Amino acid sequence: MKKKNITIYDIAKVANVSPTTVSRVLTGNPLVKESTRRRVLEKMEELEFTPNEAARSLTKKQTNMIGFILPDITNPFFSQTYINVERKAFEKGYTILLRNSMNSSEMESAHLREFVERRVECIVFMGGRINKSKPTEKETAEMNEVSKRVPLIMVNGMMQGVDCYTIRTDEEEGVRSIIDHLVTLGHKEISLIGGIKGVTTVDLKVLAYQDALKKNGLQFHKEWQIYSGFGVEDGRAAMEKLLKVSKKPTAIIGINDMVIYGALKECREQNVPINEFSFVGFDDIFPSDIVYPSLTTVNHNYEILTSEIIEVIKKIIEKKDSEKELLIDTKLIIRESCQSIK
Amino acid sequence: MKKKNITIYDIAKVANVSPTTVSRVLTGNPLVKESTRRRVLEKMEELEFTPNEAARSLTKKQTNMIGFILPDITNPFFSQTYINVERKAFEKGYTILLRNSMNSSEMESAHLREFVERRVECIVFMGGRINKSKPTEKETAEMNEVSKRVPLIMVNGMMQGVDCYTIRTDEEEGVRSIIDHLVTLGHKEISLIGGIKGVTTVDLKVLAYQDALKKNGLQFHKEWQIYSGFGVEDGRAAMEKLLKVSKKPTAIIGINDMVIYGALKECREQNVPINEFSFVGFDDIFPSDIVYPSLTTVNHNYEILTSEIIEVIKKIIEKKDSEKELLIDTKLIIRESCQSIK
Repeated sequence: MKKKNITIYDIAKVANVSPTTVSRVLTGNPLVKESTRRRVLEKMEELEFTPNEAARSLTKKQTNMIGFILPDITNPFFSQTYINVERKAFEKGYTILLRNSMNSSEMESAHLREFVERRVECIVFMGGRINKSKPTEKETAEMNEVSKRVPLIMVNGMMQGVDCYTIRTDEEEGVRSIIDHLVTLGHKEISLIGGIKGVTTVDLKVLAYQDALKKNGLQFHKEWQIYSGFGVEDGRAAMEKLLKVSKKPTAIIGINDMVIYGALKECREQNVPINEFSFVGFDDIFPSDIVYPSLTTVNHNYEILTSEIIEVIKKIIEKKDSEKELLIDTKLIIRESCQSIK
Repeated sequence: MKKKNITIYDIAKVANVSPTTVSRVLTGNPLVKESTRRRVLEKMEELEFTPNEAARSLTKKQTNMIGFILPDITNPFFSQTYINVERKAFEKGYTILLRNSMNSSEMESAHLREFVERRVECIVFMGGRINKSKPTEKETAEMNEVSKRVPLIMVNGMMQGVDCYTIRTDEEEGVRSIIDHLVTLGHKEISLIGGIKGVTTVDLKVLAYQDALKKNGLQFHKEWQIYSGFGVEDGRAAMEKLLKVSKKPTAIIGINDMVIYGALKECREQNVPINEFSFVGFDDIFPSDIVYPSLTTVNHNYEILTSEIIEVIKKIIEKKDSEKELLIDTKLIIRESCQSIK
């Protein structure tokens, strides 16, 4: 059923030219006479010839392919970032290769190898090893090796000593804006739940949280800052612990939106009235507008973030200089989950 | 900073063999003497040579690439399907190219063209034109053209007269299982909201809904079946209409989970107690376990669905025969959103 694949050799034969001439027509080489060019194009049309992309990219020495590694596309934080990049890349004629790492270092390595083999123009990297405060030596060495062959763009992460572009949203500023908002509403007892120590975005948020408490003259209570993880179940586990602490906070910040979904679930399970606490998330993924109460949270300015990613990609492909470090402002989205207690 | 690209010509020179021999080593050709093979491999190692994937796929005539077109990866129904396929494809050494169509026929065409050019082994297609009850002639003709070159796998959709593989979950059975469940709980007045007429999955669900009502001796009320769309806002709009109908149903089915999230939102907005209705969704996307009340819904058996997709892909690549039509059972997931009214 499949049509026989027409090659440039078939075209050459029927157009009565050499295969090299056909190849020159394909690559727009000015050495070809206009009459010949037209005859070749006509024959291509007749035989419904589709130039083999693999062959063409060999000739052009440019693949216009971009590798994109992220942990898990079912997490809306990543899909919301990815789809904007894909859409903008499509407009510019670039092709994205998406690979999910499931935060496995081995899968990251496999994807990196594949991308180098496929001669991608650059690699966009999110999550996993670039969020470890202490990546292994092997991981760092591998990234260094890759970066010598293919430019790396790290989004909301970094790796000490690896030459790359970094684009990140200002998560410290995001945490500060949450605390400012809560303080304005009269909150003095503020908890932070979720995350894992040693993950840079977490370490950074925890530090920003402690700093902002201090700047506002509020006390940091050790038992109010609970590590647990990044998923809904991790949020439930953290909330379960928090509900056992004798003196409870009035407001709860999540390391991301997901853990707050879990915290809300746990409160319901234990018949704790939802309005006993004010809740704030981080990421502004789409379910935050759907859950009850709808969640006040920090938005990563996805439109700007992804525009900057595409700008850097474009400059890499066009071999133009680009800023090595970019920082994007976040914005606080106010919904229903915080009460004034003044 | 980028390393000079080492080619097979460089390897040939230092190994003192012809480029053809290097190429033969790469493709595992048995004509090469073992001592030569070893020398070539050593030199590749020394020069840190990575075979160009484009060159290799030209030699192998097999790309192991699979095109995957879906409307929008930020919709968890698609990301939950996609990630399972990607994971299983990775295990088998296949490479997936994901493209979002945003339900635009033009983007679908562009992606199809790209996939044919890149010589993908097959194309998995979800949503968009394959869900239209009346696709345009141009759309059908294009799919026919593509199917002559590349095998097509349509997931939860079909196109009259186009030769392809279809894999779909039994959505009629899913609707019947919802109605049976509601009837068991004592419901006799059941509404269906969301969707757009002319989209095959919608037409199919609407028909199954009307049939199941009849079989259970229940009446179909025209004003209880409200088309609106597939998003949260469309669910709100449908619920707004339903709340204006003088005689109201006791149970509300959504064409998908999203529209029920919207219906819940609209009830809250209008201060209608949530437990005044029983709600059932369709798709079992992850927020359904997070919203309040958590949503009873139909699960597509993602694990089985995606295993079948990979099986068909595998058989296409290995040129083995495969069933042309596959139907997967759905399963009803019972959560908190339905009350017994007996």
